[in-house]
Amino acid sequence: MSATAAGTEPDASGRITPHELQLATRNHGLPLEALRHEITPVGMHYLLIHYDVPAVDTEAWALRVTGCVERELALTLDDLRARPKVTIPVTFECAGNGRARLEPRPISQPWLVEAVGTGVWGGVPVRDVLADAGVAARARELVFTGLDRGVEGGVEQQYARSLSVADALEGDALLAYELNGLPLPPQHGFPLRLVVPGWYGMTNVKWLAEVRAVEEPFDGYQMVTAYRLYRESAEREEGVPVQRMRPRALLVPPGIPDFLTRERLVAPGPCPLEGRAWSGRARITGVDVRVDDGPWQAAALGPQPGPYAWRAWRFDGWVAEPGTHVLACRATDATGDGQPDEQDWNLKGFANNAVQQVVVHVRPGD
Amino acid sequence: MSATAAGTEPDASGRITPHELQLATRNHGLPLEALRHEITPVGMHYLLIHYDVPAVDTEAWALRVTGCVERELALTLDDLRARPKVTIPVTFECAGNGRARLEPRPISQPWLVEAVGTGVWGGVPVRDVLADAGVAARARELVFTGLDRGVEGGVEQQYARSLSVADALEGDALLAYELNGLPLPPQHGFPLRLVVPGWYGMTNVKWLAEVRAVEEPFDGYQMVTAYRLYRESAEREEGVPVQRMRPRALLVPPGIPDFLTRERLVAPGPCPLEGRAWSGRARITGVDVRVDDGPWQAAALGPQPGPYAWRAWRFDGWVAEPGTHVLACRATDATGDGQPDEQDWNLKGFANNAVQQVVVHVRPGD
Repeated sequence: MSATAAGTEPDASGRITPHELQLATRNHGLPLEALRHEITPVGMHYLLIHYDVPAVDTEAWALRVTGCVERELALTLDDLRARPKVTIPVTFECAGNGRARLEPRPISQPWLVEAVGTGVWGGVPVRDVLADAGVAARARELVFTGLDRGVEGGVEQQYARSLSVADALEGDALLAYELNGLPLPPQHGFPLRLVVPGWYGMTNVKWLAEVRAVEEPFDGYQMVTAYRLYRESAEREEGVPVQRMRPRALLVPPGIPDFLTRERLVAPGPCPLEGRAWSGRARITGVDVRVDDGPWQAAALGPQPGPYAWRAWRFDGWVAEPGTHVLACRATDATGDGQPDEQDWNLKGFANNAVQQVVVHVRPGD
Repeated sequence: MSATAAGTEPDASGRITPHELQLATRNHGLPLEALRHEITPVGMHYLLIHYDVPAVDTEAWALRVTGCVERELALTLDDLRARPKVTIPVTFECAGNGRARLEPRPISQPWLVEAVGTGVWGGVPVRDVLADAGVAARARELVFTGLDRGVEGGVEQQYARSLSVADALEGDALLAYELNGLPLPPQHGFPLRLVVPGWYGMTNVKWLAEVRAVEEPFDGYQMVTAYRLYRESAEREEGVPVQRMRPRALLVPPGIPDFLTRERLVAPGPCPLEGRAWSGRARITGVDVRVDDGPWQAAALGPQPGPYAWRAWRFDGWVAEPGTHVLACRATDATGDGQPDEQDWNLKGFANNAVQQVVVHVRPGD
């Protein structure tokens, strides 16, 4: 394979390589105007597929629960559907969101700000299934393995991520077989995926095949190599695991777009701004809006469809004056964490939450 | 607006500009492994949104039929649903598919080969609705206008395209309110879109608001400026309108992918290849497969879900030998038209159908 030859060194050209383009044409973000939907319609939710969407033989498929458990299980989709169902709205964000705005730019899926979406996920709590299996006291982690196979960083693998037993069983983690009231679409993990509210998207293992209880920390590629924050070198640093989503607010770009630049054309006068904000660490306590170099001004917070989903916000204080302006917004959560104007750089471009900027051109007045 | 300042001149760097990246993160192609589905699941069908997905007030919405007709109409969604419904599987392809493989590269949505999908569209034949309105004999074209507004090439506009009265009424053009058995998703044109089998995707006007019968050829931006084939200059040439899809075959990339390069890792030995092929001009009469510099070899043609949808094909003649190979496929239709290895260039990058090439690395044998 030529992954190494192709190079994954950060790129300072400001332009996107052919490999990044291939990823950008397959994967996709939320069209920002879709922030107007409290629940994201299927097909507008962001999507990152590491390898290929696997072909699943639903007749043969069963979720296996294995390892340090009292009783190994093999559960068909009918078995899972026969259990009490829980549905929860959950906001997902890709850990690499914002990567393509870094300089130099880490080479991977080149997200700008749009790798987000909120779905209503329906399924069975992880803790209910694991209670039936009986997790042994010596178990330290649960390893969730999907059916998707590929090569990454030279390592051939099935996609797999682990959680501590506490993170998997004490929260509201779900084994989901429905999205927005319908069976999971293939691209979102049919027949079953893990949903871990509050964590970045890579945690939500799609096309789930096995949950294995293990005694030692899982050292799979996606845990010890891929999803870590490194300052400079993945070889010389241990890195910090990427886990819960940092706070972020996005606004629905007002007015109408230019096809190519996506810059906005807006009528002069009062122009309400609205959007959504989320954090995987604590509830959203504030959203502020800024116009050009003006002060940050507080937006009004609205409802959220559930404790793990984004919160609506609205700002009625902008009177659009003719000329070109830059709108920005930022969220703060109950821990006091907010969003920087300039992103701290990290080697793989994870957990970026620099403020969104939207360029608007306000028409001349009458 | 800075569209002109940003420049839309073709780019010879081989790298993608920030404006193209913004389009590539919003819009998306078909993940090629989804070619295995005869009907593309919602969310994997390609999607090109010129401006924004508009917010539609379904209480207020009605399709207006206006202009050179005996009776102007205003039809609600309930009115349309009360009529006899037709459902047809139709393959859509974006007219700009393949654009990013051209050198120099026309600056717009940077598709590689994946801007395709097949949906089952349900709705009311255009001819049935227009029969009720009574198109006047003097009418020459029907203009279909959507609710999406934006600026393109410096021109503020609602998206609109026209068809000759014959093309609109004599074929199987549909006013579609369903996709794959469900109401249209917002991103595919809710509440109603035009579907014109065989034509490139820009014809299928989304978020349809009005059908207007006119006496003179419609001179809207999307007819006289955007969707035309120009050799060198849109100012000095009249250009040729982009209409029906040229033949194209795509293959499901075999084996498993490398995350970054999307190159494939394949086991040695017999390796069946399969895919889909379509043409908007005539039925598919042949698909050929080529390995490296070998001869083109005929694939077996399979079923197609309907006369306007892609046709399955399969090739069992490849025995994968260790090493790196390039797989290619090409389609031929009943007019004798096929696919070139090297694309004839045109200014805006439309109607490209150069053969797909897939790089595979076959593992060493035992």
